[in-house]
Amino acid sequence: MRLSISKDEIINRQKKLYSRLQENRIDCAILFSITDIFYLTGFHFRSSERPISFFLDSQGKTHLFVPMLEHDHAEEYAQVDFVHSYPEYPGLRHPMEYFKEYLLEANFEGKIVGLDAKGYSSSKGYRGEQIDQFLYAREFKSIFGWVENMRMIKSSAEIELIKESCRWGNFAHRLLQKYSKEGLSEIEISNRATTEATLAMIETLGPEYKPHGNPANAFYRGQIGPHSAFPHANTQNAVLKTGDTLVSQAAADVWGYKSELERTMFVKEVNKEQEKYFNLMVQAQETALDHINSGKPYSVVQEAIQIFYKDNGIEHLTRHHSGHNIGLLGHEAPFFDLGDHTIMEPGMVVTVEPGIYVKGLGGFRHSDTVLITENGIEFLTYYPRDLDSLICN
Amino acid sequence: MRLSISKDEIINRQKKLYSRLQENRIDCAILFSITDIFYLTGFHFRSSERPISFFLDSQGKTHLFVPMLEHDHAEEYAQVDFVHSYPEYPGLRHPMEYFKEYLLEANFEGKIVGLDAKGYSSSKGYRGEQIDQFLYAREFKSIFGWVENMRMIKSSAEIELIKESCRWGNFAHRLLQKYSKEGLSEIEISNRATTEATLAMIETLGPEYKPHGNPANAFYRGQIGPHSAFPHANTQNAVLKTGDTLVSQAAADVWGYKSELERTMFVKEVNKEQEKYFNLMVQAQETALDHINSGKPYSVVQEAIQIFYKDNGIEHLTRHHSGHNIGLLGHEAPFFDLGDHTIMEPGMVVTVEPGIYVKGLGGFRHSDTVLITENGIEFLTYYPRDLDSLICN
Repeated sequence: MRLSISKDEIINRQKKLYSRLQENRIDCAILFSITDIFYLTGFHFRSSERPISFFLDSQGKTHLFVPMLEHDHAEEYAQVDFVHSYPEYPGLRHPMEYFKEYLLEANFEGKIVGLDAKGYSSSKGYRGEQIDQFLYAREFKSIFGWVENMRMIKSSAEIELIKESCRWGNFAHRLLQKYSKEGLSEIEISNRATTEATLAMIETLGPEYKPHGNPANAFYRGQIGPHSAFPHANTQNAVLKTGDTLVSQAAADVWGYKSELERTMFVKEVNKEQEKYFNLMVQAQETALDHINSGKPYSVVQEAIQIFYKDNGIEHLTRHHSGHNIGLLGHEAPFFDLGDHTIMEPGMVVTVEPGIYVKGLGGFRHSDTVLITENGIEFLTYYPRDLDSLICN
Repeated sequence: MRLSISKDEIINRQKKLYSRLQENRIDCAILFSITDIFYLTGFHFRSSERPISFFLDSQGKTHLFVPMLEHDHAEEYAQVDFVHSYPEYPGLRHPMEYFKEYLLEANFEGKIVGLDAKGYSSSKGYRGEQIDQFLYAREFKSIFGWVENMRMIKSSAEIELIKESCRWGNFAHRLLQKYSKEGLSEIEISNRATTEATLAMIETLGPEYKPHGNPANAFYRGQIGPHSAFPHANTQNAVLKTGDTLVSQAAADVWGYKSELERTMFVKEVNKEQEKYFNLMVQAQETALDHINSGKPYSVVQEAIQIFYKDNGIEHLTRHHSGHNIGLLGHEAPFFDLGDHTIMEPGMVVTVEPGIYVKGLGGFRHSDTVLITENGIEFLTYYPRDLDSLICN
């Protein structure tokens, strides 16, 4: 199988964006989102204090603006017509001065210019002017979210990469469960599972495999015992004890594409209370899965789950909506949320993960990655979901 | 040793920010930067589509605004006077509607309000109004960069955490070098070194150790052979060959604090050309180290290196400035850059890493983490820098 997105598909993404701009009478566009730049160019890079931008001129030509340290790298990997660079940030002349020159050369002046943000931003010490401070345009129009919208519907090639991600996440999770023993630290367990799954992955896929992220991995990020009641806990270096409730996570990046597999597991023993909440969580997940239907709004899924929560008197134990799109980012819009009325469409890939959190006892959440199809859903993750399969011995 | 920042030190950071606001006649402040929120509260969290904010009212009371799923987690870990929460994003009511209510309750209306950004932003599907669209203030003043400035000078407790990071980075790097053999993949090598160093780290430091990031790790991120000429390459799943130039990286997060150790190494053999550029790079690093002096501007370091590059006719082989501050982020301002005239001060922790990049041959860069002191520098990383020590057999 192919382990990347083809050049043709990337060029088609650019053409689609160009068409959308024209339909909306926008002449040209400037993008700063690193995820969208990767999506539109295939150039995977580390963001830093140094600004990077993709721009599309009124002739439909594509440009990448990078620091000199990324120039050759971009020439090698980016599917663009032109790579432009500046010496350095902050540098003797600010990168935005060079950027202005490249934009003028590409005839951005006096045009209707689409922008996903008014300027580059970074937590890593960047300071700089916004575009409208140095470029004269006929009009600036926000195209924030346009590429994000394009990313919502996955192509068959993207779905294949996500499936590959699921396969290796599944394997890593098998090992995570196998190595989860009383007295061991979560870090020890996850490192062992991650390393072993990663080595199998690179042996199997060979040198064509480029992670653009992390190869196969599985971990607990602190959701061990009572601490698992924090839905977004961080790794605690916790040690497993008999009877602990565990909430796991496993995945693999395949050319930047992600998936999500999470399971509620138990160390050796399960008490009645744990079993009760486990079963309610599985039923909540079934409820969610039953309500995913292309053509319906995302909100219907959460509405169904809320009814289930109310009927079972556990509304006070819930803490979050029940899933989100996934692809190049771990969380992408839309969301299975009461307030999200986006229509579900075939080709959208979503996580399904209602959760129940009981203080002092633990958290209960499975997450599966699922493809929305014409007639229903297709499970992309396939790890067992039943209690008997999820006890670590 | 202590493996975290004390509650007192965190409270002092808040008081310092409050004093700075008062000195500048700003009544109260709202912050969205996740790094700054962790710095000011000790609450380490995963950012997502759900907005999080820290605010400081005109009485000096501290508040955290989080989604419900983080409420208990924040109550447990955040050093703040109040934790406020909202049900969910997008939710039936937008989080900013709740935020407005909490801000009004805390008497933000009609005040001079400091902001580090006009609103929450996230690549993960968030949309929302900016503060000035829903809060009436006497004036909004930007305090962007204020906490970043506070973070520049490290306390003795912070320096101890960075030193601990360096120790484990050093150990992970030892293993990386030991396991770097012809015919093995970079991923295999780095996983082995990372896992072994991580296990030793958690055994040694015990359960008190909370990474808030990644435990000990060492890797090549694609800088193998000719590909090492891309200064910011990504992991390529490359296989090592005899004669390859390697550029490594190693570190460990200790309660969120980072360090940076990078070495240029060679697989088994070094040719004359490699040796030449290696030696020039080491001399460039020596030149940089010699010019770090508290009281002088950061730019003098880069100016000295540029002279060295010119004198040796290798200016065309250089691609970036020669270092940056480091702490809670891998790259922090200021930079050893021609355009950065910030004054070096005792307590600043910097990386020193001039690089030389030769197409077809490879990249040559060491990076050391160094503390600026009253009288000079103190090396925090201490891995050997000489050629003989850096050949992988």
